[in-house]
Amino acid sequence: MAITIAVDCMGGDHGPAVTVPAVFDFLRRESDCIAILIGREEVLRPLLQEADNELGQRARIHHASEVVGMDEPVASAMRNKKDSSMRVMADLVKAGTADAGLSAGNTGALMAISRFVLKTLPGIDRPAIASILPTATGHIYVLDLGANVDCQPEHLQQFGIMGSLLVSALEHKQRPSVGLLNIGEEDIKGNDIVKRAAELLRASDLNFYGNVEGTDIWKGTTDVVVCDGFVGNVVLKSSEGLAQMIYRGLKEEFTRNIFTKLAAVAAMPVIKAFKNRFDHRAYNGAGLLGLKGIVFKSHGSADAFAFRCALQRAAEAARERLPEKIAARMAAVAPAPTICD
Amino acid sequence: MAITIAVDCMGGDHGPAVTVPAVFDFLRRESDCIAILIGREEVLRPLLQEADNELGQRARIHHASEVVGMDEPVASAMRNKKDSSMRVMADLVKAGTADAGLSAGNTGALMAISRFVLKTLPGIDRPAIASILPTATGHIYVLDLGANVDCQPEHLQQFGIMGSLLVSALEHKQRPSVGLLNIGEEDIKGNDIVKRAAELLRASDLNFYGNVEGTDIWKGTTDVVVCDGFVGNVVLKSSEGLAQMIYRGLKEEFTRNIFTKLAAVAAMPVIKAFKNRFDHRAYNGAGLLGLKGIVFKSHGSADAFAFRCALQRAAEAARERLPEKIAARMAAVAPAPTICD
Repeated sequence: MAITIAVDCMGGDHGPAVTVPAVFDFLRRESDCIAILIGREEVLRPLLQEADNELGQRARIHHASEVVGMDEPVASAMRNKKDSSMRVMADLVKAGTADAGLSAGNTGALMAISRFVLKTLPGIDRPAIASILPTATGHIYVLDLGANVDCQPEHLQQFGIMGSLLVSALEHKQRPSVGLLNIGEEDIKGNDIVKRAAELLRASDLNFYGNVEGTDIWKGTTDVVVCDGFVGNVVLKSSEGLAQMIYRGLKEEFTRNIFTKLAAVAAMPVIKAFKNRFDHRAYNGAGLLGLKGIVFKSHGSADAFAFRCALQRAAEAARERLPEKIAARMAAVAPAPTICD
Repeated sequence: MAITIAVDCMGGDHGPAVTVPAVFDFLRRESDCIAILIGREEVLRPLLQEADNELGQRARIHHASEVVGMDEPVASAMRNKKDSSMRVMADLVKAGTADAGLSAGNTGALMAISRFVLKTLPGIDRPAIASILPTATGHIYVLDLGANVDCQPEHLQQFGIMGSLLVSALEHKQRPSVGLLNIGEEDIKGNDIVKRAAELLRASDLNFYGNVEGTDIWKGTTDVVVCDGFVGNVVLKSSEGLAQMIYRGLKEEFTRNIFTKLAAVAAMPVIKAFKNRFDHRAYNGAGLLGLKGIVFKSHGSADAFAFRCALQRAAEAARERLPEKIAARMAAVAPAPTICD
């Protein structure tokens, strides 16, 4: 059966110039997929006409007159822009016209709109954002990365379940290992919420590894790391900042004078191989988990390669029917409702 | 007036082999300082005899029969080791025999012992650990880094005051800027505790910058960054892990084959210059702030250079009478006690 992806073509720093070529590349690679290009028809039509015939048949335009700004407040995007490309994307997923949606737009607005349109799955109190990060040995899934700034132990347990099922869906891995981010490995470490979350995770049927520390993220100690959205967001952003500082610092040293520039010529292929190995673009595509429908978020600054990677992740989650699997697992976890009360 | 530093010579991964030469180097550079070398006399005496006469006159041994293990539980270190080098260090600071203390031992035990022996300053609910991190433009002070895993807004405000005074003392900087770590710059971002902390910090007489994000730590946006100890610890450890992954990844690429090894020969001086620029050893020496006395913590794996840097920080905090300054500022912040209740 064909998989249909609703693509917010207007979101992100670059808009259709990046998203439309990425969709074509995606369709070329995924022959079972169909794309709905959402955005201003007058902008998208000429771009679509550039596609070859076969691809053109698997892509169609759905006009949306508005665009949510990258810095637009969530409330304004929700209330005033009912015909934004982002909102229409969520509507198409909700209607079942699309099997999954993708946007590179404003994260806060995307989460709020997706949650409002799609609603959360039974048993899930709060949706979470799950990103993929490169590690020394492969990659790792971390959630939540900012949707929930105040988590209770039950939320962290739900994140563990959703993250585990996401890895199963995208990596075809049975029983992925789940770690709980803490300030030490011992059970006595951490605040009360984390300690109680560890108990819940240990009592669940997940492959729970136990507490992990900040260093374990990059070691790839587990397949999934679960944390509060405040902590996850700070870790993600501080890591981005540190990596940037290191790369810039290296660049500055290599361009300092004629001798270092000569050294740079020799070192360039090695540094390039290194950059390719940890190419963050390959990890683009964060899942908004816990909704009655599949929505993925691309980095706002994604290029066509990165955006295509995110499209592939969204398609794979749709093939694997991720929300149904999360709902089924939550039904098994949740206490059965009693009949007489 | 001479500054006397009590040095736990037995702590850390390397013990006296590192700490004693570091003390000599420190005394050579700081002619107004005296060191009390704490630890097993039979171990320290032969090492002290290697010092030249002038230095030998400014160093004396204080015997302590026990050592707190690097992984020893805090309760055991507190209860069973009243004559540990760490405990004796804190006792000497408490007695006023030393103006400041330094240990490279177990952080949890050092904080617990220091707090038990020295007590917290009036107006300070909880001591905090303040570390220095390199940034793109210099360095930055971050606190708390793990002493407090559940902070209230008032604690974050106290961290702001203590961090600001620490920077004034060590950097001789008037009104250092203070940022509050959050998941966005806007006031509406973050959880309730952080929002209320921002109000308290804004209402204080600190040079409060406002919210900062994870990336701002490495950009060096402010002089001080304040956060909950859980968040701070996770950020610190994940940053260590990421930096290690990047360095190891680069090393792997440069040692892959004969061509990359040749490139490494050319690139080595540049990479070395880069490493020196961000040499974490120069930033060694975290302050345990908020106590009635000065205690600094060295990284357990510190070498003699790093340990000497930490000694210099402790000495500078003593010269600047940091606890008195924190107490004076807290007295100005705290509501005056009413007489009749």
